[in-house]
Amino acid sequence: MAYGLLKGKRGVISGALNEQSIAWKVAALAHEEGARFVLTNAPVAMRMGELDKLSGSTGAAVIPADATKDEDLEKLFASAKEQLGGPVDFVLHSIGMSPNVRKGKTYNDLNYEWYKQTLDISAMSFHRMIQAAVKQDALADGGSIVALTYVAAQRVFPGYGDMADAKALLESIGRSWGYHLGNSKKIRVNTVSQSPSMTTAGSGIKGFTGLFDFAEAMSPLGNAPTEDCARYVISLFSDLTRFVTMQNLYHDGGFSSTGATPMVVDKFERS
Amino acid sequence: MAYGLLKGKRGVISGALNEQSIAWKVAALAHEEGARFVLTNAPVAMRMGELDKLSGSTGAAVIPADATKDEDLEKLFASAKEQLGGPVDFVLHSIGMSPNVRKGKTYNDLNYEWYKQTLDISAMSFHRMIQAAVKQDALADGGSIVALTYVAAQRVFPGYGDMADAKALLESIGRSWGYHLGNSKKIRVNTVSQSPSMTTAGSGIKGFTGLFDFAEAMSPLGNAPTEDCARYVISLFSDLTRFVTMQNLYHDGGFSSTGATPMVVDKFERS
Amino acid sequence: MAYGLLKGKRGVISGALNEQSIAWKVAALAHEEGARFVLTNAPVAMRMGELDKLSGSTGAAVIPADATKDEDLEKLFASAKEQLGGPVDFVLHSIGMSPNVRKGKTYNDLNYEWYKQTLDISAMSFHRMIQAAVKQDALADGGSIVALTYVAAQRVFPGYGDMADAKALLESIGRSWGYHLGNSKKIRVNTVSQSPSMTTAGSGIKGFTGLFDFAEAMSPLGNAPTEDCARYVISLFSDLTRFVTMQNLYHDGGFSSTGATPMVVDKFERS
Amino acid sequence: MAYGLLKGKRGVISGALNEQSIAWKVAALAHEEGARFVLTNAPVAMRMGELDKLSGSTGAAVIPADATKDEDLEKLFASAKEQLGGPVDFVLHSIGMSPNVRKGKTYNDLNYEWYKQTLDISAMSFHRMIQAAVKQDALADGGSIVALTYVAAQRVFPGYGDMADAKALLESIGRSWGYHLGNSKKIRVNTVSQSPSMTTAGSGIKGFTGLFDFAEAMSPLGNAPTEDCARYVISLFSDLTRFVTMQNLYHDGGFSSTGATPMVVDKFERS
Repeated sequence: MAYGLLKGKRGVISGALNEQSIAWKVAALAHEEGARFVLTNAPVAMRMGELDKLSGSTGAAVIPADATKDEDLEKLFASAKEQLGGPVDFVLHSIGMSPNVRKGKTYNDLNYEWYKQTLDISAMSFHRMIQAAVKQDALADGGSIVALTYVAAQRVFPGYGDMADAKALLESIGRSWGYHLGNSKKIRVNTVSQSPSMTTAGSGIKGFTGLFDFAEAMSPLGNAPTEDCARYVISLFSDLTRFVTMQNLYHDGGFSSTGATPMVVDKFERS
Repeated sequence: MAYGLLKGKRGVISGALNEQSIAWKVAALAHEEGARFVLTNAPVAMRMGELDKLSGSTGAAVIPADATKDEDLEKLFASAKEQLGGPVDFVLHSIGMSPNVRKGKTYNDLNYEWYKQTLDISAMSFHRMIQAAVKQDALADGGSIVALTYVAAQRVFPGYGDMADAKALLESIGRSWGYHLGNSKKIRVNTVSQSPSMTTAGSGIKGFTGLFDFAEAMSPLGNAPTEDCARYVISLFSDLTRFVTMQNLYHDGGFSSTGATPMVVDKFERS
Repeated sequence: MAYGLLKGKRGVISGALNEQSIAWKVAALAHEEGARFVLTNAPVAMRMGELDKLSGSTGAAVIPADATKDEDLEKLFASAKEQLGGPVDFVLHSIGMSPNVRKGKTYNDLNYEWYKQTLDISAMSFHRMIQAAVKQDALADGGSIVALTYVAAQRVFPGYGDMADAKALLESIGRSWGYHLGNSKKIRVNTVSQSPSMTTAGSGIKGFTGLFDFAEAMSPLGNAPTEDCARYVISLFSDLTRFVTMQNLYHDGGFSSTGATPMVVDKFERS
Repeated sequence: MAYGLLKGKRGVISGALNEQSIAWKVAALAHEEGARFVLTNAPVAMRMGELDKLSGSTGAAVIPADATKDEDLEKLFASAKEQLGGPVDFVLHSIGMSPNVRKGKTYNDLNYEWYKQTLDISAMSFHRMIQAAVKQDALADGGSIVALTYVAAQRVFPGYGDMADAKALLESIGRSWGYHLGNSKKIRVNTVSQSPSMTTAGSGIKGFTGLFDFAEAMSPLGNAPTEDCARYVISLFSDLTRFVTMQNLYHDGGFSSTGATPMVVDKFERS
């Protein structure tokens, strides 16, 4: 179902690790839709992943970059601009990691050095990416920037721990940059708030299958598949959405607007 | 625990039916806090209720009024002003009824004459009350108006049917009047979004106990008791909150900001 | 820039009046993108408009229907289904009118018969359209329904009068149907909240040019053009957005997420 | 107008600097309402301030603490508990500072070391305070915690710079703790989003008077005075609001729910 939606567009896609990754699916689909782009991920993540395979199938160069290091990010955008032959039209931020969650520190007993890492990796990295791109004059007028987020930024999911705070920060960063880039270069910035997904990142959360099934039962369309998330991101990169900006956009099968469903309430019915 | 928060204040309280009613508890507490007020309800509701008892214990006159009839409402406010010796400082709107819900018409098969009644009784009545009060010059400068609502205005609860639409309309009416009355008379208007409650109104909803227990499990403080809702409304009528306006204020034990809890997720855990 | 996004899809588009109408532009673009559809509008609106011209250029039949009359709407969908050779994949609701606003009745002095008309024409008509379509079994699985709305549903714009309440009601109706149609037929329902537009409808609002220019100054991308609104609606009808539902989606150049801009604040700067 | 709302309650109030401070006014009013509490501020802030005066008038001990240092905060709560004779019923967080804003670094050219300081001082300090209090078992069951915030967490105000991100993070921290403390100790946590204020903190923002006057013109009740903010905070510390939690509560004269006003639109009217 290729439409040619991204024909002639250049981009930077971060966060693809393996075939389960949303970023991977965005890259595959962006390729089908006619875009040329570079892939990036942290050097450490790349060793675990299979990015070469994606690089092969999409013709995209891989440029390693630690998203907490400005010099890495500046090189990334300088290099992307050079390799792609011009400034980029779209950027995907799909980066997040919480040492506290990984190591089982709950929200009421955080390690603050790890908390700072959570914020730096998962949220500040979004600011850094854009600022690096701006410094390299690597963003084309009228472009589109998307970061992936989760509804935990608005409502508490205890197992999500300090990642909730990071996502709230990430969304604020998106709004703020949306203002500045909108004014100066007609670039839009949005965050996409995706259903829980059986990705490497998602399934690391404690009690994940219960949460996944609860969200499924609370979503009139069911949890949104990652393939469809990729399609949605493509629509946001395309010229169909040029005046949508500074929004947090739910791609969640209706979870965010559902208060209760029979499938859930029935479990609480007194017999 | 009387503080004298409403000493010298005059009010109109609608919707008290019996001791379970939130409006009843607001009236009882407003009395303790030093207010003088009149009570009102629809003639038909009054026949079913025990309003005389409340009238006796609070010294409040009862003025029947059909909240869908402007002339009744104008008489109500003219009479309140006269009996209380001046314009009123606070008004409580606690009126709602859906013929569709009562008669088991689900949202995808509405009877539109009944739908119009739902909107008229449950939402337009709020506009009518205020417009009648304004016409009678019966609102004191610096006063406070509150209407009771439910989170179904933001998120779908299937059993709540067309009342969800009525509550969304009610909240919009509150905002709009908040602008006009704020400008002209420094009066504030807010809606209070209360937990599901075992009142006559609440328990009429299909599958109510399941919903009640689900909401309890999803609220870090548990469902907010109606006594506490009354206390909260009193705080909004008092001089402690003179610059809070045009807000929908959740009094729900945290339900609205909670995405999942172990008590709920565990029911979905795969064993 | 035709992509073929709606190839093979059938639809119903209401509310096109003349070339300025957003619905007109949606129809023109849906045609380019490969859809087949019928056009509808109220008989009275059609006499003022130029719908025949649009019918000619898109090959769409015109089926007059009063959106406050269930029998008209049932005929509309029965007829659409027959003429298009199957149930419809997309529906656009773009209907709104307030007698109070037209006749200069401000929000604090509403005529309630007119208010009921405002709600019936501008909001209940959305419920009626969908219920009529369901009764005629005229909605295809996996389809998409969109209604146009305005940010006055969330924030007060005094000149917008009782249309604000109608839009709040409309958005609630969208959410509620989104739940029911999502569950039963994987159909999604969303509202698009568009910038003020120099359409026949928009420019009827009192003080409209001031509001238009204020919104322009408060939107980092400027007010969203109606052509782009049409593109956005097409994206929502396409298969790119199959898990987006029950959302109110701002297409507003960033207005909704902007608190102040230098262009506005400077007008208040003390010299 | 003392009501005795906080009779018998113990608290910790941070952030009072001078008579303009909201925290100062909260402390003065909490004293009138019968509370006993300790005051705290950063050692460096205290040298500039007049906290001794407030200490004298309220009988509150002053305990210096750097809110970015866990050991300081643990001592603060251990000491508060000891001096007040038991765990505290309320806590006010009123701490914020951005080196980027102070030194004129705009949002599109941030210094990231300073950004980290902004987040640490203005937001993480809220998490640290609560975690320190929990570790010292210094929070009483049924208590109330409030942090002050600003609508820039939801909408962009360019002059507010990276403080917007800090406030978004702060509000998320409030929600997350609200869940945990609600569950374990029936403690509620809320943020109060206050109008722009002519405090030492507020007036440091670039172009502040223009913003202040714009907000005044956009607020039906005008900007909320800091005295009234103190009253509102007292209501949140009192037993009137025991089931309000995890909310961001606007105390802003209606600004957040107003889209446009004649006073603003008129400046854009074409003549």
